[in-house]
Amino acid sequence: MGHARLTAALIALAAALPGSATTLTTAEVLAQSAPQEWKEIPADRLLVMDIERGQILLELAPEFAPEHVANIRILAGQGHWDGLAILRSQDNYVVQWGDPNAEKPEARRALRQAKERLPAEFDRPVDGLPFEALLDPDAYAARTGFSLGFPVGRDADNQRTWLLHCYATLGAGRDMAADSSTGAELYVVTGHAPRHLDRNITTVGRVIEGIEHLSSLPRGTGPLGFYESPEQHVPIRRIRLAADLPESERPRRERLDTHSRSFRLLIEARRHRREEWFVNPVGRLEVCNVPLPVRTVAEG
Amino acid sequence: MGHARLTAALIALAAALPGSATTLTTAEVLAQSAPQEWKEIPADRLLVMDIERGQILLELAPEFAPEHVANIRILAGQGHWDGLAILRSQDNYVVQWGDPNAEKPEARRALRQAKERLPAEFDRPVDGLPFEALLDPDAYAARTGFSLGFPVGRDADNQRTWLLHCYATLGAGRDMAADSSTGAELYVVTGHAPRHLDRNITTVGRVIEGIEHLSSLPRGTGPLGFYESPEQHVPIRRIRLAADLPESERPRRERLDTHSRSFRLLIEARRHRREEWFVNPVGRLEVCNVPLPVRTVAEG
Repeated sequence: MGHARLTAALIALAAALPGSATTLTTAEVLAQSAPQEWKEIPADRLLVMDIERGQILLELAPEFAPEHVANIRILAGQGHWDGLAILRSQDNYVVQWGDPNAEKPEARRALRQAKERLPAEFDRPVDGLPFEALLDPDAYAARTGFSLGFPVGRDADNQRTWLLHCYATLGAGRDMAADSSTGAELYVVTGHAPRHLDRNITTVGRVIEGIEHLSSLPRGTGPLGFYESPEQHVPIRRIRLAADLPESERPRRERLDTHSRSFRLLIEARRHRREEWFVNPVGRLEVCNVPLPVRTVAEG
Repeated sequence: MGHARLTAALIALAAALPGSATTLTTAEVLAQSAPQEWKEIPADRLLVMDIERGQILLELAPEFAPEHVANIRILAGQGHWDGLAILRSQDNYVVQWGDPNAEKPEARRALRQAKERLPAEFDRPVDGLPFEALLDPDAYAARTGFSLGFPVGRDADNQRTWLLHCYATLGAGRDMAADSSTGAELYVVTGHAPRHLDRNITTVGRVIEGIEHLSSLPRGTGPLGFYESPEQHVPIRRIRLAADLPESERPRRERLDTHSRSFRLLIEARRHRREEWFVNPVGRLEVCNVPLPVRTVAEG
């Protein structure tokens, strides 16, 4: 039995013994993680959004929505969202931004080099994707777990997979037609996971930093949480791909690899809460309650 | 077969047929609900909280935490929270209020007629409580459903039940000791359901209106989302039991009875989404995603 297998067996043993001394706390797992277990988010996957309240960083998931991510990269490169606005903040649901004049053909901002029509990318084949499974039951998906840093679902046949609607998930708004999203209208989940949206709309990534600047926005008082007057719109200063920013302005972040030993230990740390405060160590875990640690890349 | 049984059979049939024409939409269910399916929330269960941004209404659950609710009623009657503050807003977690000087024996506000020590009320026997079950699997509890207007869990033996930590749940903060809560320090869930707290702390009710005034507060930048300076504290003007307010100031609300036919239809409407927008009608439902409709009692 090799070291990796022995480790896996010990993790499984710890998982079977709630409160077992071999289960670490979240803080202990992070403190003991190895540098190579952290993966820098490539600059062409990192979207940088600036609003008056602060900066929001988002990681794109081209493996799950290649056409949408390609369009979003073009739109960011064109400065498409600069001067547009956050138009909607619906309590316990989503914040959404785009063009306030999107419905007015004569006034709306042209998509220029970006495509006006994309296929729906609600899910994809599992082929070739790594998968760290969670064993706990889930209300919505036959299987849940993590792929490449994102929470994902899989169907019972293990043939299709999709990015889940958890808190902080980034999606591409659409109208009635399944293929009516372009990526120009984006939303972020700011409430309890609206998992009924899974496989009904294209999810393209997630917020990795600064979500509090979105989640604490005043709620819109119109239908669906849209702001009722233009003065309530929250202006977007700029959205750019990190790769398109001058190096001095380019944020660098790394996330704990969801296919590392420390991430498996983190899952066990969250399932069996060894922190002194817990009377009942829980012994269960839901996919959207698993933290996905991100940190600034150390200088030098 | 009586009318009620026939109706139940039709509902079961509709549930078995995703997108079946006999499944109503949420809007249709509410429009067709009968007046007697709505229950007015008694004034001695309704807590009225006023802050500068607006009014928040909370329903207490004495069946689940009788000692805590009794203490909260006494504290409200004494004006305990008037002039105290919201001290914490942690993103995707909770907002919490109480006495900024709680840790300073010489400066803290006395609890007077309220008790300084209460038993932990983390769960209770199921005896005598009505239960509307959800059939979908849940990550944290053997069974989930609704009792008396609240989302609840039950264990595998069906012997204990507890109020779940869903968005809007009201709980009583505690220190390390399980019996260290008094109800003077209260929190509201403002993020994805932190279900690992279930059976680890006493839950006492839920927000039924105005949660947006809490959930959109600026996040605290200290550890656990506590505000770092007293100027950031959000003052509480007043918290009273509706029963203690003059009749002219007393809000009256009614909620859809969670043990009514319309509530069962609402569950099916949320499980099988017949709204035109849905491509995949879902066919699944998680307990914290079930809306619990509340409306103002009609005058006269």
